[in-house]
Amino acid sequence: MKRKLHVIKIGGNIIDDQKRLAEFLRKFADISEAKILVHGGGKSATELANALGIHQTIIEGRRITNAATLDVIVMVYAGLINKSIVAKLQAFQCNATGFCGADGNLIQSKKREHPEIDYGFVGDILSDGIDTSTIELCLNNGLIPVISAVTHDGNGQLLNTNADAIASGIAVSMNTYNDVNLTYCFDKKGVLTDFENESSYLPEMSMKDYINLSSKGIIAKGMIPKLDNAFKALEHGVKKVNICSADEILGGTLLKCE
Amino acid sequence: MKRKLHVIKIGGNIIDDQKRLAEFLRKFADISEAKILVHGGGKSATELANALGIHQTIIEGRRITNAATLDVIVMVYAGLINKSIVAKLQAFQCNATGFCGADGNLIQSKKREHPEIDYGFVGDILSDGIDTSTIELCLNNGLIPVISAVTHDGNGQLLNTNADAIASGIAVSMNTYNDVNLTYCFDKKGVLTDFENESSYLPEMSMKDYINLSSKGIIAKGMIPKLDNAFKALEHGVKKVNICSADEILGGTLLKCE
Repeated sequence: MKRKLHVIKIGGNIIDDQKRLAEFLRKFADISEAKILVHGGGKSATELANALGIHQTIIEGRRITNAATLDVIVMVYAGLINKSIVAKLQAFQCNATGFCGADGNLIQSKKREHPEIDYGFVGDILSDGIDTSTIELCLNNGLIPVISAVTHDGNGQLLNTNADAIASGIAVSMNTYNDVNLTYCFDKKGVLTDFENESSYLPEMSMKDYINLSSKGIIAKGMIPKLDNAFKALEHGVKKVNICSADEILGGTLLKCE
Repeated sequence: MKRKLHVIKIGGNIIDDQKRLAEFLRKFADISEAKILVHGGGKSATELANALGIHQTIIEGRRITNAATLDVIVMVYAGLINKSIVAKLQAFQCNATGFCGADGNLIQSKKREHPEIDYGFVGDILSDGIDTSTIELCLNNGLIPVISAVTHDGNGQLLNTNADAIASGIAVSMNTYNDVNLTYCFDKKGVLTDFENESSYLPEMSMKDYINLSSKGIIAKGMIPKLDNAFKALEHGVKKVNICSADEILGGTLLKCE
């Protein structure tokens, strides 16, 4: 029988709210099955960049990552946020250990090439870029991986990589030897057809619903990359994918393939 | 037979010199025996603190670590420096994986209490604070630990801890199942009796020599904490302790117990 494994991703809105984050981490620590936490950034990277006078450019929701911005991202994501989460989980008796994609050669990516936009040090995960051996080693020995959204190119260059894509990639790669439940936690109850109204929450959403709702512009634009990554995981055999509130970890909108 | 294990510590002067660091890491990657790298900070933390307008106070060579300074240290040491080193080692086919003391509950420390000076978030390693199980797991599976000078108190608080003390503590703790060689790499050839003159280098130094030379003020003041930590390791059974130049890794002044 395959082991049940939770891959849970938390986003910036939760990370920025210390009280909510602590409550989330307490619940995460309480999950008795095998688990992996993937985290994004939050406002701290932008705030640090601003304080240092590093101009930030966001094109279609993606941060243009020049060398100075990459340093900020590595410091904040792989440093401050990752280690603060690990220390808090340790306080909850959860033997967490932090990773970025360079650690144990976890995630190799390729610097993004685009005909018009120079994204800078942004990396897209290689199709064979995830090496699950270190994660398996951790899980088999009671260590809980906490993974930040920084990867490497194998030639010494760190790269800024989308955390939703990392969660999806890890879930797919781990699926061979595990029954993976992938959960995207954010600040809404789940997928909403009206972003301002929690009662518009969908308990389930099929791929067909998604195509339909997004073509009509009913799904909020910011949700598209998250849902693309979520459905990609489902298509590649991940057993269960949910989008939910960090306050109700492991619930929310259940995605369905058909 | 015990496994031979190198615990090698590099300091700020090497970390600040990109070319020298790359050359050091190439040599470190080439060491065929089991190995652990411990690193300190360098100028980057002070530079970042200055850029953010965080006032730095150093008392007797120790940085007073208020909350804002701790964030800077975690970002720079456990984030930027640690991950940059790991990515560079990966490029040399060395399967490095980064740690701070919170990761895998590696190093627990206690916030320093002092009758007169408030050191802030500075932690001294607990006598039973080093848990070697995760390090052993790494070494037994071909993963090379790279450890930054940040620890935790077990209650969710990260703490700034002296890297020389971490190297010494790790070497002593690992000594039970390994023949440990501890090497402190810095920018001089080894222990000098005249800090300005490399030809005053001592190929060997006994504890007696050390007490004699330091009582006469011949050993440079900045070397005292490093040598205290080095001799402490030797007294606690670490097989071989050297102080050497990062350019001549595994050579330098050989310390002797008698």
